[in-house]
Amino acid sequence: MSGEFNLIETYFVGRQTQRCDVLLAAGDDCALVEAPSGYSIAISTDTLVSGTHFLANANPGWVAHKALASNISDLAAMGATPAWVSFALTMPEVDEEWLAPFCDRFFALADQYGIQLIGGDTTKGPLSLTLTVQGLVPKGEALRRDGAKEGDEIYVTGSLGDSQAGLDVILNPTNAGKPNARVLEQRHYLSSPRIKVGEALRGIASAAIDISDGVVSDLGHILKRSSVGAEVDVEKLPVSAQLVEFVASRESALQYALISGEEYELCFTVPEAKREAMWQALADVDCVITRIGQINNSGTLTLTKDGQAISWQLSGYDHFKSN
Amino acid sequence: MSGEFNLIETYFVGRQTQRCDVLLAAGDDCALVEAPSGYSIAISTDTLVSGTHFLANANPGWVAHKALASNISDLAAMGATPAWVSFALTMPEVDEEWLAPFCDRFFALADQYGIQLIGGDTTKGPLSLTLTVQGLVPKGEALRRDGAKEGDEIYVTGSLGDSQAGLDVILNPTNAGKPNARVLEQRHYLSSPRIKVGEALRGIASAAIDISDGVVSDLGHILKRSSVGAEVDVEKLPVSAQLVEFVASRESALQYALISGEEYELCFTVPEAKREAMWQALADVDCVITRIGQINNSGTLTLTKDGQAISWQLSGYDHFKSN
Repeated sequence: MSGEFNLIETYFVGRQTQRCDVLLAAGDDCALVEAPSGYSIAISTDTLVSGTHFLANANPGWVAHKALASNISDLAAMGATPAWVSFALTMPEVDEEWLAPFCDRFFALADQYGIQLIGGDTTKGPLSLTLTVQGLVPKGEALRRDGAKEGDEIYVTGSLGDSQAGLDVILNPTNAGKPNARVLEQRHYLSSPRIKVGEALRGIASAAIDISDGVVSDLGHILKRSSVGAEVDVEKLPVSAQLVEFVASRESALQYALISGEEYELCFTVPEAKREAMWQALADVDCVITRIGQINNSGTLTLTKDGQAISWQLSGYDHFKSN
Repeated sequence: MSGEFNLIETYFVGRQTQRCDVLLAAGDDCALVEAPSGYSIAISTDTLVSGTHFLANANPGWVAHKALASNISDLAAMGATPAWVSFALTMPEVDEEWLAPFCDRFFALADQYGIQLIGGDTTKGPLSLTLTVQGLVPKGEALRRDGAKEGDEIYVTGSLGDSQAGLDVILNPTNAGKPNARVLEQRHYLSSPRIKVGEALRGIASAAIDISDGVVSDLGHILKRSSVGAEVDVEKLPVSAQLVEFVASRESALQYALISGEEYELCFTVPEAKREAMWQALADVDCVITRIGQINNSGTLTLTKDGQAISWQLSGYDHFKSN
C-alpha cells in the first residue's frame, strides 16, 4: 500500500466511524480485518474510467456516489452486508477542487452503508477509480444467479429506465430541454443500492442479480446460469412518471426499462411457495417491489404484452461507448 | 462484476488450481470466500499505470509479474499467506498479443504462491492494472510497522539496489551497454516476494515492511510508526556483484542500495533475545538475510561507514516520474 501522492493520509484516513472488525486500516503494508465465524465474504471489484463510465467534467460527488454505489449493489445482489472497501485512485495530478467534493460524498455514502475504507493506492495517470468492496453473508445464504427454477416468480426493485434517460441527457445536450432532464441525469449517477432488500431475501430468493447491463441482459444471466427460461410482461415493468414524460410515450418508457443499464436495482426470483414469506420479510423495507414475470423451462426469455409475445428490437446498454 | 470486454471469461476463468476456501469465483455479482477461524485477513491494493510504473512497450509477462509480485510482497511484509486476488484491467482495446503472455506469467506466479484469482473487472481506457490481494495470518501474529523497540536488530532480505539499476536501463538507453544491463532490467521486473520469510518471522520480528520506496524511506516508516530511531552501517548493505559492476564502484552500489525502490525485499526488526529463534525459523528458507543495523531511541535514522556518521545526498525513488 503506497502511492505517489500520499493522498490517502490527507483525504482518506480517519474520516469514518471505525468498525470493530478492522484491526488496521491505512498506515501499514496491508489492512487487517477479521470475518466473524459462520459468515462467507462476498467480494466485488469495479473500475470506472473517465470518458468510459463518467465524463471528465462530471460532478465529482456524483462520480464518487456512482463508483461506490455500483459496487455496493453487487453486495446487495448476493444478500451480503457491506463491510470494507479498498479504493485505488489514479489521477493526472492532485486536484483538490475535485477531491474535496469527491471525498465528502464517498464517505457520506460509505457511512450510510456502514462500510469502512481500509486502504488503497493513489497513483499518477489518466483519471480512473477501482474499488473492491467486501461484505458478509451467513454461510450458505448468499443469493446466487444459478438457483432459479421453473415456476419461480420474477421481481425487480424500484423503477427501471431512468438511468438510460439520464445517460441520454449526459451524452446529448439537445436532450437537456426535455421534461425532467435534470432529475433523470441525477438518477443515472445517484442510485440506491438495495442492501436491505438483499438481506431480507436471504433464504427466500432462489436467484438474484443487480441490473447493471439492462434487465433483459441481466435476467438473461440468471436464465443461463440456472438453465431455465422466462416470460416477462413488459406492461408490468415499473417505470417512473418522469421517464414517461421524458420519452413522451409509455411504450418508449417500457423499452427504456428493458435495456437501461447501471440502474443498480435488483432482479430476483422467488418460488411461489415463498411469496408470503417474501412480502413479510420485505414489510419494513422502504423499496417498491414489482413482479414482472415468471421462470419457465423454455430456455429463452420471452417478452409479452397483452398476453402476446412481442419482438421489440432492443439495443444493449453499452456505457459511454468509444468517446 | 462485469466488464465491457468479457475478457474475464476468455482469459482468466478456470486457469488455476481451485482453492477449497473459494466457494464462487467469476460468474456472479461477487466472489464468495471463507476465512478459517483464528485467522485475520491481510488486504493490499496496488495500481500500476502504463507510463508511470512500466513503459507501454514493456514485456507483458514482466508487467504481470511485477504487478502481482509487488502486491504479494505486501502480504509477505505482514507475515500473511497469500490466498485470493481480484484483478481490474483497463485497456484501450483487446490486444491478444499482449494478453496471452500477460496471463501466462500472471497465472504461473499465482500458482507458485497458491493464490487464486477470484474476480475483477475489465474496462476500456488507458492501460492500467489494479490488484487487490488477500492473505491469511493467525490472529495476533501479523507483522506490523509499529513494534520496533530500542536495541532490536535490523535485517533485510536478498540484495538491494538492482531494481534502481534496472530502472536506469529501462529509462535511459545509453545504460544498455553497461555490464549486466539486461540482468538488472529483469531484476527490476521479476522480484521474488518473500512470503516464506514473512511466515517464518511470525512471533519473532517486532516490525516489518517491504522495500517499495527504498530502504531509507521504508525503514523510516518503521521508525516513525514505532517512535524510535536507528543506525544503519551502509557497508553491511547487501549488494550484488552485478550491481557493483554496473555502477563501477562499491560506494555507488551502496548508494543505490539505500534508495532503490520496488525491490520487494523485506526490512524487519528482531529483538536480540529472539536472534537465535529467528535463525532457526529461517534455517530452511532459501533467502539471504543480512543484518544492517540496530534500532535506537534517537528518533532519527543515522547512516554510518567505518563507525562514522555519513551524510550522503540521497534522492528518493520516484517511479517513472512524469514521462
